[in-house]
Amino acid sequence: MVLRVWPQFGNETALFICSCLAIVPLAGWMGRATEELAEHLGHGVGGLLNATFGNAAELIIGLMALSKGLTGVVKASITGSIIGNILLVMGLAILGGGAKFSEQRFNKTGARASATTLTLAAVALTIPTVFHVTAAGRTGAWNLMTEQKLSLAIAVVLFVTYACVLGFELITHKQLYAMDPQDQGEEPKEVSSWSISKSLLVLIVATALVALMSEFLVGAVEAARSALGLTEVFVGVIVIAVIGNAAEHSTAVLMAMKNKMGLSLGIAVGSSLQIALFVAPVLVFSSYLFGSPMDLEFTLPEVVAVVAAVHLIFQISGDGETNWLEGVQLLSVYLILAILFFYLPERVDAG
Amino acid sequence: MVLRVWPQFGNETALFICSCLAIVPLAGWMGRATEELAEHLGHGVGGLLNATFGNAAELIIGLMALSKGLTGVVKASITGSIIGNILLVMGLAILGGGAKFSEQRFNKTGARASATTLTLAAVALTIPTVFHVTAAGRTGAWNLMTEQKLSLAIAVVLFVTYACVLGFELITHKQLYAMDPQDQGEEPKEVSSWSISKSLLVLIVATALVALMSEFLVGAVEAARSALGLTEVFVGVIVIAVIGNAAEHSTAVLMAMKNKMGLSLGIAVGSSLQIALFVAPVLVFSSYLFGSPMDLEFTLPEVVAVVAAVHLIFQISGDGETNWLEGVQLLSVYLILAILFFYLPERVDAG
Amino acid sequence: MVLRVWPQFGNETALFICSCLAIVPLAGWMGRATEELAEHLGHGVGGLLNATFGNAAELIIGLMALSKGLTGVVKASITGSIIGNILLVMGLAILGGGAKFSEQRFNKTGARASATTLTLAAVALTIPTVFHVTAAGRTGAWNLMTEQKLSLAIAVVLFVTYACVLGFELITHKQLYAMDPQDQGEEPKEVSSWSISKSLLVLIVATALVALMSEFLVGAVEAARSALGLTEVFVGVIVIAVIGNAAEHSTAVLMAMKNKMGLSLGIAVGSSLQIALFVAPVLVFSSYLFGSPMDLEFTLPEVVAVVAAVHLIFQISGDGETNWLEGVQLLSVYLILAILFFYLPERVDAG
Repeated sequence: MVLRVWPQFGNETALFICSCLAIVPLAGWMGRATEELAEHLGHGVGGLLNATFGNAAELIIGLMALSKGLTGVVKASITGSIIGNILLVMGLAILGGGAKFSEQRFNKTGARASATTLTLAAVALTIPTVFHVTAAGRTGAWNLMTEQKLSLAIAVVLFVTYACVLGFELITHKQLYAMDPQDQGEEPKEVSSWSISKSLLVLIVATALVALMSEFLVGAVEAARSALGLTEVFVGVIVIAVIGNAAEHSTAVLMAMKNKMGLSLGIAVGSSLQIALFVAPVLVFSSYLFGSPMDLEFTLPEVVAVVAAVHLIFQISGDGETNWLEGVQLLSVYLILAILFFYLPERVDAG
Repeated sequence: MVLRVWPQFGNETALFICSCLAIVPLAGWMGRATEELAEHLGHGVGGLLNATFGNAAELIIGLMALSKGLTGVVKASITGSIIGNILLVMGLAILGGGAKFSEQRFNKTGARASATTLTLAAVALTIPTVFHVTAAGRTGAWNLMTEQKLSLAIAVVLFVTYACVLGFELITHKQLYAMDPQDQGEEPKEVSSWSISKSLLVLIVATALVALMSEFLVGAVEAARSALGLTEVFVGVIVIAVIGNAAEHSTAVLMAMKNKMGLSLGIAVGSSLQIALFVAPVLVFSSYLFGSPMDLEFTLPEVVAVVAAVHLIFQISGDGETNWLEGVQLLSVYLILAILFFYLPERVDAG
Repeated sequence: MVLRVWPQFGNETALFICSCLAIVPLAGWMGRATEELAEHLGHGVGGLLNATFGNAAELIIGLMALSKGLTGVVKASITGSIIGNILLVMGLAILGGGAKFSEQRFNKTGARASATTLTLAAVALTIPTVFHVTAAGRTGAWNLMTEQKLSLAIAVVLFVTYACVLGFELITHKQLYAMDPQDQGEEPKEVSSWSISKSLLVLIVATALVALMSEFLVGAVEAARSALGLTEVFVGVIVIAVIGNAAEHSTAVLMAMKNKMGLSLGIAVGSSLQIALFVAPVLVFSSYLFGSPMDLEFTLPEVVAVVAAVHLIFQISGDGETNWLEGVQLLSVYLILAILFFYLPERVDAG
């Protein structure tokens, strides 16, 4: 934790790397606190809570970047968070869990509902790009304004859908997200060692520190990027997303290794879902306050990456069981996408 | 019903709106008659029957539009009917049913067979567009004639596949589409109040009147469109498709609210399937009679819309159960697609 | 078998056709030998063995074509083998089996694992094309070298993933691929009539002869192609792939008709999987030895074909049961794709 004061004296690249390192132990604390809290609140709410706190950092980074007009980085980090949670976090969790258990089971209906919501989100994030490509091919009639209106309308639909999803998960069908019978079978209900208030306090403090580190990180990112020879899209989609989701990361893997695959899936997929249906719309709305409206038009590689990731998690979680090979499959696709974004040349246009 | 004589005296936009309104009660009658008939014939045949009568209107509209050379509108209404049935009709049915029942079940194998046929149809309708894009990029070698031959060949394959699907549903595996045990459990077999002949008569008369109204509607569509400031593709994909499928609409929602989700799905998905595998090929064949050959090359937004809709219904129906959130998810995607088609500028080319 | 000496005296087109005909009985011998061997070794290893021997021919054809610098034909035959095995072979097997049995069952988890690996492969084979399209739109920054590096990196990921898949199928989860209880129920364990060594000998000799025939075939393909008026992509994707997979073909259909659907699926899907994850990477690696590096950038129609085929087999095999209609659906899509490749004009660029 002391690391956070050091970077002030170093150069930008050192600050960037130190911020990254500092987030790892903080994420560990967040994971621990969330796990304790989840013991008190049940799996569904616990998972939701973790996803919320994990994404608080992303929301703050996004807002800061927007205030500086860096819509490109913000959009790349939205895509990166979605695929990072689905492919990297979930892949490592399934692989980690699968190394210990031959087969892990979880509630199929809940997993399918989340996967379908992700598909909806993937369609929503594809549409502005489809519009852009189609409208650009029809001379004269198209302008940027229409594209922003389209994105704004889609953001509203996503936001309302998110409210429905919360109503489903927390009110009408909460039993689907409650403690799975499989989970209980593996492990006797342990006595929680932290109280609710202690867990809450640790969670809030750790989240605040993660957000602070993230701020240093974003501030130093431009300089570090050119020093390390990475493209903007690679940093946004891969680096920032990996760091920004370190919290979900450690918790999801931890849960999977305790054979609580339902909670693990709830955290990782729930986080992707929240980025797409809550963080992305809020960032679009906020961009109007900052005077530099952000649309939801992504590049073709980003659209393909999101569609591929969402399809894979549906295929893997649809049968209510996982094994180590499925973890490897998710990680392979992540690696292939990371290679794509690494080799992809910079966009030359001004936007 | 008296409404149908009024529009003659009004202007085009009024005629357009009145035709729309007139179709609603007629669709109600069709729904009632079909339901009565379905009681006599069993769910599978009943669902098929309803889809056939629902699509008779579409076929007639399509033929009339073709005779006037309006291939653009015809193609848009094909896409619109497919996504309208899957997303709007099925979305409302699942939401309506889900408001009353926490979980609704139906035969999984039948639903999966329909979903796979829809995927096949989506591939078939994507191919001419893929051909167009690829061939257009290869100078010289391409011409419109080849594209029409390709579409004709695909129409033949779809038509033959449809015959196979009917053989499967009505002969070799009809038990999959018979009265579901779940449906029977909810409701005692009620005594049918209409005879077969009365049901049939009402069905035929109502269908004829719907077709007539549709004719007024199509005739007035151009004038109304410019008066209301809507694009051609929006009217074809959204407005005409919604009106043209009002019959399936009311019946499917009614059935879902009676917890007969199997029949509801059979109507909505069966209707989409029939549009793609029967109406579309017949329209392609007929276009040669009218001397203005129609191909099956759709725009990118239409292809994306169909693929997204077909994928979503597969995800939702693949596990043999539905809940209200799945209805919301289908409706959200419909809304997002409607927004896309609303903002999409007109195609500027002559075709 | 005597046919193989005749073609030497005929012209190129006759040689082409005779080679094709010669492969059919040889494939029958391979099928028989593999079946015998599978009796000794169990279904999983038997299926893998058959896929390996079936693809030895493809690998040899590929290497010979690469040595002549025909990367276009090699890439087309990779795509063609993947879709041919999934759509044509599996389609005929399911239809053949479905003609005798109303419903055929197999291990769902194994089938889903294979389908997910195929999805991964489809994503991997899509990425270089996405890169190409995106990078080509960004002036200046792109060059062919980067594209080759990207393809090489993806080939490495695929190769490593294949090793993991083998570890899963043969070591950690071999029970999923073992003799299905359903299969045993249908047919009493028959006494194997051939010994392991006899089976092995026949298998090796038949494979060698198939490879030899394939060589004649490839040598004559150019002349035959222009004589018959077929495009290069049609010959690569459809003709060579059909002949090259005749072995899997006859065996898979034979197994399906004996109601051993698990083995049938293992052969056809396993063969596609091995082409994508083993043969394709090995060909990329080898292309560097021949001095004409091959990338994995496919044309849009090829990418769409692979994605469609992979998605369909996932939909069809995901529920662990098949019926004849699913065979018809696969064959319809194959037919539609064959029509597309038949009408598609030649690529005009030099590559």
